[in-house]
Amino acid sequence: MKDLDPNFVHTVFFWLKNPENPTDRKQFTASLQKFLNNSLYAKTKFIGTPPKASRDVVDGSFTFSMTVSFDSAESQSKYQTEPAHLTFIEESSSLWTKVIVYDSQGI
Amino acid sequence: MKDLDPNFVHTVFFWLKNPENPTDRKQFTASLQKFLNNSLYAKTKFIGTPPKASRDVVDGSFTFSMTVSFDSAESQSKYQTEPAHLTFIEESSSLWTKVIVYDSQGI
Repeated sequence: MKDLDPNFVHTVFFWLKNPENPTDRKQFTASLQKFLNNSLYAKTKFIGTPPKASRDVVDGSFTFSMTVSFDSAESQSKYQTEPAHLTFIEESSSLWTKVIVYDSQGI
Repeated sequence: MKDLDPNFVHTVFFWLKNPENPTDRKQFTASLQKFLNNSLYAKTKFIGTPPKASRDVVDGSFTFSMTVSFDSAESQSKYQTEPAHLTFIEESSSLWTKVIVYDSQGI
C-alpha cells in the first residue's frame, strides 16, 4: 500500500488551532489515521509533520500534512464523500483553522 | 522506486511564467525528469499537473507539482546540492515565476 499511484496524488496541509496542544494533536492524528485506514479508495497513506530545521524557501508553518494517492480521479471523487471521510471531518474540523489542498494527475 | 518512503516527503509546486506555452512546458518537464532520473537520493519521482475540474477548496493554480521521498532528512539535504539538482535549477529557473516547497517527516 506504500506505492504511490501516479494516476492521482492528493496533498493536504492542515494548520491546527492549537498546534502545540498534545491532546488536540493526538485527537487529530487518531481521527485521520482511522479515516485513512477505513477509506475504500485512498492509497499511500502518508501523514507527516514539518522538520524542525527548515530552509528559507520552505513553508514549514503547517501542523500536519497528508499525501494520499488514487488509481483514478473517479476514486478520489468517491473518497470525498465516503462515510469514513465525512466522519473524519465531523470529528476533526473543529481542530483546524486552515487547510490547503492540492490535486495532481501524473504526466 | 514507486514506494513512498515515509521518512521524508518533499512536495514542490511550480508556477511557470508561461503556463500555456508548449515549448516552456516541454523544456521544464524534460529538465525535471532528467534531474529526478539522475538524482542519487530522490525516491518516488512523481510529476503532476492539476486536474481540469477542481473543487472550490483546492488550489489548482500551479503549473506542475513534484512529489519525491527520501530515506532520511540527510538524503534530502544532499539532494539539495547534488550536481543534477544544480543543473536543473540552472536550466529551468528562468521558466518559473513562483515555487512553494513543503517538507514532511512521517509520524
